[in-house]
Amino acid sequence: MQLDPVLARIDADLENSVHRLLELLRIPSISTDPAFAQNCDIAADWLVCDIESLGATAEKYPTLGHPMVVGHIKPPNSDSLPHILFYGHYDVQPVDPIELWNKDPFDPQLEDTANGRVIRGRGSSDDKGQLMTFVEACRAWKTVHGSLPCKITFFFEGEEESGSPSLVPFLRENKAELTSDIILICDTTLFQSKTPTIVTRLRGMLKEEITVIGPDKDLHSGLYGGVAINPIRVLSKILGSLHDDSGRVTVPNFYDGVPDLPDDVDAQWQELNFNHATFLRDVGLSVPAGEKEFSPLEMIWSRPTCEINGIQGGYTGEGFKTVLPSQASTKVSFRLVGDQDPFAIRKSLHAYVRDMLPYDCQVRFHDHEASSGLVMSTEAPEFEAARQALSAEWPDDAAFIGCGGSIPIAGHFQDIIGVTPILIGFGKDDDQLHSPNEKYDLESFHKGTRSWAHVLDALAR
Amino acid sequence: MQLDPVLARIDADLENSVHRLLELLRIPSISTDPAFAQNCDIAADWLVCDIESLGATAEKYPTLGHPMVVGHIKPPNSDSLPHILFYGHYDVQPVDPIELWNKDPFDPQLEDTANGRVIRGRGSSDDKGQLMTFVEACRAWKTVHGSLPCKITFFFEGEEESGSPSLVPFLRENKAELTSDIILICDTTLFQSKTPTIVTRLRGMLKEEITVIGPDKDLHSGLYGGVAINPIRVLSKILGSLHDDSGRVTVPNFYDGVPDLPDDVDAQWQELNFNHATFLRDVGLSVPAGEKEFSPLEMIWSRPTCEINGIQGGYTGEGFKTVLPSQASTKVSFRLVGDQDPFAIRKSLHAYVRDMLPYDCQVRFHDHEASSGLVMSTEAPEFEAARQALSAEWPDDAAFIGCGGSIPIAGHFQDIIGVTPILIGFGKDDDQLHSPNEKYDLESFHKGTRSWAHVLDALAR
Repeated sequence: MQLDPVLARIDADLENSVHRLLELLRIPSISTDPAFAQNCDIAADWLVCDIESLGATAEKYPTLGHPMVVGHIKPPNSDSLPHILFYGHYDVQPVDPIELWNKDPFDPQLEDTANGRVIRGRGSSDDKGQLMTFVEACRAWKTVHGSLPCKITFFFEGEEESGSPSLVPFLRENKAELTSDIILICDTTLFQSKTPTIVTRLRGMLKEEITVIGPDKDLHSGLYGGVAINPIRVLSKILGSLHDDSGRVTVPNFYDGVPDLPDDVDAQWQELNFNHATFLRDVGLSVPAGEKEFSPLEMIWSRPTCEINGIQGGYTGEGFKTVLPSQASTKVSFRLVGDQDPFAIRKSLHAYVRDMLPYDCQVRFHDHEASSGLVMSTEAPEFEAARQALSAEWPDDAAFIGCGGSIPIAGHFQDIIGVTPILIGFGKDDDQLHSPNEKYDLESFHKGTRSWAHVLDALAR
Repeated sequence: MQLDPVLARIDADLENSVHRLLELLRIPSISTDPAFAQNCDIAADWLVCDIESLGATAEKYPTLGHPMVVGHIKPPNSDSLPHILFYGHYDVQPVDPIELWNKDPFDPQLEDTANGRVIRGRGSSDDKGQLMTFVEACRAWKTVHGSLPCKITFFFEGEEESGSPSLVPFLRENKAELTSDIILICDTTLFQSKTPTIVTRLRGMLKEEITVIGPDKDLHSGLYGGVAINPIRVLSKILGSLHDDSGRVTVPNFYDGVPDLPDDVDAQWQELNFNHATFLRDVGLSVPAGEKEFSPLEMIWSRPTCEINGIQGGYTGEGFKTVLPSQASTKVSFRLVGDQDPFAIRKSLHAYVRDMLPYDCQVRFHDHEASSGLVMSTEAPEFEAARQALSAEWPDDAAFIGCGGSIPIAGHFQDIIGVTPILIGFGKDDDQLHSPNEKYDLESFHKGTRSWAHVLDALAR
């Protein structure tokens, strides 16, 4: 039994593991804001050092954006051992609105809460804390046994929160180095904060910035109000029309390629007894806002959406300014499923917006990420092995579930490396991902690390 | 003939007059932003000093907001002379978006342009430059004749750009001191940048901040998108519905009290040959955006409007953040005419917004300024005297016109002091009021000053 002493070591070393994570969390590696580029570089260097301390040969690979970190550990006599690639991302979301944080987002702290100890800080859950669960499991294994039970490739990205522009070219160029038998990704959550899961459905993503331009300068609404077109009015009308009264998205042909949910998947999901009332109540809501004829779980896991992520125009400071602004802009994103074609939807969206423009207005589009949804096959035996390994660590048996988020890398691994990745994560619903006061439960970190030891043990057999 | 030497003195002293104005423009007296409160105070002090140099007894009166400046000049043997009160405001609009200014807004400069010399800087036209035309006319008169031809009361406000919260109480409390025979206000423009005018119609104003609140925190759209209501979506739907396809405002009972345009006024306005194509082309537009059945001049002068002056929600920085924000807010203003009741409309707006809210959303209103429109009687002989005086200075005869803007003080003077004010101003349509790169033509300043000499001369008879 090689697992038990590793678990014991993980328990004994927890305090040090947390301190290593806090170090990484102190680096403000916000990838979407160019002002933080150097910090992304520093985070990559930190990871190179850390996995080298496990005996990896590691390197920081430059890209046009933020660097990739790749490291390999090849145990002695490892020819017959399975080769596992582990993926995580070291970049984090911006922190605004900064005034809603109770503490400095980059001065992470252990904190006691009504629900137990948490690690508080930007990136604690998404994804530095999750990424380090795997690293710490490897460290414990190495410490106890002197070498790991599998060949391991660590692959850390620094652009996940900004659309991963360098990822596909990097995977293509380094396909040989990144090819492996099994791919593990740690960037997901426990189902309802307690059931361990393997995510087998991901939504795709289409992101678009739209700027409506009217007059060629800001105008005084006293002089021009009533006779000059107001771009905020135009943009509001467009955005306000993107959903009909039943919650459906109105962009033409948007639902092309959206599959019906297979009966067996539907049955599995029913068994999960998803409590949407609690899920919504936790964020101050009560009524599901999506398409009326679908269940809340379907709204999140198997139905596409359209969300307005940001809007800005005119005067938004203190007090009032009766300006009639020259332009107004928005950031809109669509979560996609099944065979929805992000590029066809983008084209349809552009046409939809142009059709609604009054004669005097122009529109400027800034295309961002476009990726398809993904439904993964769970036929490979590693899926069942991993499911059982997780079930051994947690009170509930692990489940195959869907995920409302988009992890485009999952599809890229499948397409480019040819391996269907196994998505396991330990975040909780109240982790405040992308929000102020992000946290990661100490339990997530501790049992997450132990979970990976179970998984390594199971996959090594 | 006492006028000619005054006009000659104005011409000879123009350079010094401009330099005095530049001094005043250097004080960043933005009234709406509390950070600039001290500068409002400094501007008030500057004005006290300046009118004292004309022989006025002047004082700065504190208010709950920014101070008022009141100064009196009583020429010797003035019992039979008319008493004129002159109003202007020394506060200015905010300068954002600052990046669109070609120069520091508070480092004013004389600049040569294709249309002649201009004084460039925040407040140059609105209203410091205009205010100083009257002060400089008085200065020239005093220099030439040793005393003024009328009793003069200067009354300068510092809160016009932020809704004049202290004005009505101040007028009430100091009614005796501010009572006069004639009231002059300089805060308007030449018609089509060339015809001198007396404004006899002003639109009222209703300003409202609206914040829609959905989830109690910002959410990750991957986790909650599709099932949680998005406040930007709700706010967009509300704002996008405020105008129907014909350009009419949809708030119930909004048009109650909007009068038809009398035939004689309509005939006068037709004679002005307003070129709306040029008016719109100057700001990059071509199609009047208001109610389809009204002429562009009516849209600006005699019809009410609804404008969205600002909107903000979610992530608006560089790059993208797939946040589902907790709240979204907007600043909306309505220009009102005739007997429209701003308080009834506010009530109707609140109900309209609440009716459109989904169950899970709340709304927070922040009520700002509310004032009625004003139609002034021109029966008092001073109106015709002033009109003829202006006609003597400018190539075109002066006209009685409407104004799309709101100058609530005009109504307050009428209601509280009991005198219908005469609104004369020399701004031009391209002055970029409330916008980046505000300017005041040197011609406006020079001929404006001369105009007041004509008016003083006419009213003194």
